[in-house]
Amino acid sequence: MSKLEKAMDTLIEVFHTYSAREGDKHKLCKRELKDLLQNELGEYLEEQKDATSVDKILKELDENGDGEVDFQEFVILVASLTVACNTFFCESS
Amino acid sequence: MSKLEKAMDTLIEVFHTYSAREGDKHKLCKRELKDLLQNELGEYLEEQKDATSVDKILKELDENGDGEVDFQEFVILVASLTVACNTFFCESS
Repeated sequence: MSKLEKAMDTLIEVFHTYSAREGDKHKLCKRELKDLLQNELGEYLEEQKDATSVDKILKELDENGDGEVDFQEFVILVASLTVACNTFFCESS
Repeated sequence: MSKLEKAMDTLIEVFHTYSAREGDKHKLCKRELKDLLQNELGEYLEEQKDATSVDKILKELDENGDGEVDFQEFVILVASLTVACNTFFCESS
């Protein structure tokens, strides 16, 4: 399995580690989402210099919902954060 | 760094390993994209049972472009493939 394939597996594994805790096992409730963000994305969210754009992402994620985040919405969040980090990386290199 | 943060770093690292090879170092030309797909996503693309949806993703990616794929387009491809794999995983579990 390549590094990229392992990274994709990790996205699926991390999501389900939290989503399986309570309620619908394929969706994150607010508490599961908050735990995931704090435990798994603390460093990225801290390093993110443009705090406004993170706030915007989180607000957009909330607006979608019934308070539940499915895997597709989670992947969009991760993708947005990764694009923001890549932009920062490109601009500083 | 958490597993999720490492996975995000891997996406950025793998993209730039290929995008830096020729031309614009922050974009994949067709040859770089083809090499990346063959070397890094061979297993996922092989395992993907619904071949039509992969074809569709690739066609959409091509339509965007001047033959160049930027990081954002790449992340959308990876996100789409990961969602397809997650659906397969959820349905078979």
